[in-house]
Amino acid sequence: MTNLRLTPLAQSLPATVPFVGPETQERARGAVFDARLGANENVFGPSPRAIEAMAREGQWMYGDPESHDLRAALAQHHGCSPDNIIVGEGIDGLLGYLVRLFIGDGDPVVTSAGAYPTFNYHVAGFGGSLHTVPYVEDHEDPASLFAKAAEVDAKLVYLANPDNPMGSHHNGADIVEAMKALPERSLLVLDEAYVECAPEGTALPLPADDPRVIRMRTFSKAYGLAGARVGYAIGHPGLIKAFHKVRNHFGMNRAAQAGALAALQDQNYFEENLTKIATARERIAEIAEQNGLTPLPSATNFVTIDCGRDVEFAKAILDGLINRGVFVRMPFVAPQNRCIRVSCGTPQMLDLLAETLPAAIADANV
Amino acid sequence: MTNLRLTPLAQSLPATVPFVGPETQERARGAVFDARLGANENVFGPSPRAIEAMAREGQWMYGDPESHDLRAALAQHHGCSPDNIIVGEGIDGLLGYLVRLFIGDGDPVVTSAGAYPTFNYHVAGFGGSLHTVPYVEDHEDPASLFAKAAEVDAKLVYLANPDNPMGSHHNGADIVEAMKALPERSLLVLDEAYVECAPEGTALPLPADDPRVIRMRTFSKAYGLAGARVGYAIGHPGLIKAFHKVRNHFGMNRAAQAGALAALQDQNYFEENLTKIATARERIAEIAEQNGLTPLPSATNFVTIDCGRDVEFAKAILDGLINRGVFVRMPFVAPQNRCIRVSCGTPQMLDLLAETLPAAIADANV
Repeated sequence: MTNLRLTPLAQSLPATVPFVGPETQERARGAVFDARLGANENVFGPSPRAIEAMAREGQWMYGDPESHDLRAALAQHHGCSPDNIIVGEGIDGLLGYLVRLFIGDGDPVVTSAGAYPTFNYHVAGFGGSLHTVPYVEDHEDPASLFAKAAEVDAKLVYLANPDNPMGSHHNGADIVEAMKALPERSLLVLDEAYVECAPEGTALPLPADDPRVIRMRTFSKAYGLAGARVGYAIGHPGLIKAFHKVRNHFGMNRAAQAGALAALQDQNYFEENLTKIATARERIAEIAEQNGLTPLPSATNFVTIDCGRDVEFAKAILDGLINRGVFVRMPFVAPQNRCIRVSCGTPQMLDLLAETLPAAIADANV
Repeated sequence: MTNLRLTPLAQSLPATVPFVGPETQERARGAVFDARLGANENVFGPSPRAIEAMAREGQWMYGDPESHDLRAALAQHHGCSPDNIIVGEGIDGLLGYLVRLFIGDGDPVVTSAGAYPTFNYHVAGFGGSLHTVPYVEDHEDPASLFAKAAEVDAKLVYLANPDNPMGSHHNGADIVEAMKALPERSLLVLDEAYVECAPEGTALPLPADDPRVIRMRTFSKAYGLAGARVGYAIGHPGLIKAFHKVRNHFGMNRAAQAGALAALQDQNYFEENLTKIATARERIAEIAEQNGLTPLPSATNFVTIDCGRDVEFAKAILDGLINRGVFVRMPFVAPQNRCIRVSCGTPQMLDLLAETLPAAIADANV
């Protein structure tokens, strides 16, 4: 190549992917997975009304670049103004825009060691300097995060509540209390992707206008629309407005906007889905216990299972499941990587988990 | 806001949008448009097979981050390798990634004055320095573009063939000939969004591996899937691979991938659509002539109409159409902005154009 005059930053970056997709693994193994339990998708799917709305929408038209109707409905749902809300191509897309707005060469950012890799990917992608603190008893720890933010003068501090990959959570009120130690010069990026699956009181009980925090939400989890790529952020209008400086204004799929709106408006279906998720969580915990493993408490649509030993043991169990057609994932960093992470599945998928887990453990014990 | 520690670049950028969407205009006027002829969409819509494929796809799953099946089919279609192809969230999304990879503070970029504003938006968004050359007889002019690129040592040179907003085109072979003057250190960004609507011989007749150029294609125009947001780029594998450093790997809507694949595989429907587009182009030209205006030759799915006077006159006609429920757009820059731009519409939409244009012209003449 003669013409590859990439920026110095782009030259320094690896051609990487934060997660290998299940389809890539399926192509490598030459067979599809029988149970897709690795990506924290919602196997129960979106509301039939969302499916109808998507089918009805004429895909020959570009989507509304303002996502006006969806933002209006979200504002009503959250009791705020549409000016508090930006809609984007999943939380991943919004995190990318946010990092781009704030982070340049060497700018300090804080997260937990082993938290969401795609956030780290964006920070690296814009040249930021990532500082980490450890999990405390399988929870991300607001106190350590905010102390580290003060120490390094972080522009952004990432916290997921509930947490992925451990499934743990804090009460929203406890985070508000901890925010007394959030430095004034640091913006809290609160990823609430799983909050609809969590106990009452987990969502941050602060007004949307609070300038200290931006909250990330998604239709990919509880609403069952991962394939549609619809996320949104809630924050101060001044911050929300900054997204218009850099975002792909016509990037939102038209049917996806309509599907998300219809899904939001079908709260009965949504509640039924939450019940199915809770039932699946209990079943996964039972299966783990029946096999001598320890399920961690979960406030999400997955259950993280402590395999009780080291990363090699957990990885061997994971490989044993994958080889038997059960797609699961595991945390990246010690000590969390003693675990595997299993998404809520249909009863049939969880039957297959129950059927294959003993053999996977036996393999790992060899 | 206390926390808005944006980068100096982000602070300097306006909160802007390259195009105001028709929905925004509809909300402002309190009524929907009866004829949506302003965004160069394809009113004839996608193949029924694409619609079926999108409806069939389970939206609870994330899309394949490799867009493997679509890339494989595109490679076959273009006679190249899947490694020559990257799929992204429309050409807009891909242009954003490309500019991000190449352009940092003050890096020189060349385009034509009045060419695609979204490319300019991305260049500004990454701090690039944009240099322009004028159109020559309503054509983007490769010779001036490449001479300017040599003069300023441009990293990227943008050329759309066929052109938007003028609808003009060059033979691909003539661009190859002109590329003898393309500086070795400049990458040609050839936007072929409309090339399927153009005469035989318009597409660049160079192998996908040629490192001097990256070509942009889309399913938004001839394939009728603007709402789905599926674009792709064809280029040297070394360049294509660089996109994996920065792109939103899980950004592609799952149903959109399936829809684009099905649309590509239904070439009969595609050919029928091209015929409808050609018929609509002729009708628009007739309507223009019947009203004493001059339609420019078009190699696209729109017709640019020379209103014969200045920008005020053209703008008055445009406003007259919009006020009568006909959404159209116009070029941004003189001398092109003596024109209005009308997308191919259904016969009913073009009847409305024929009905309203005389009154719009009468208004403009007051």
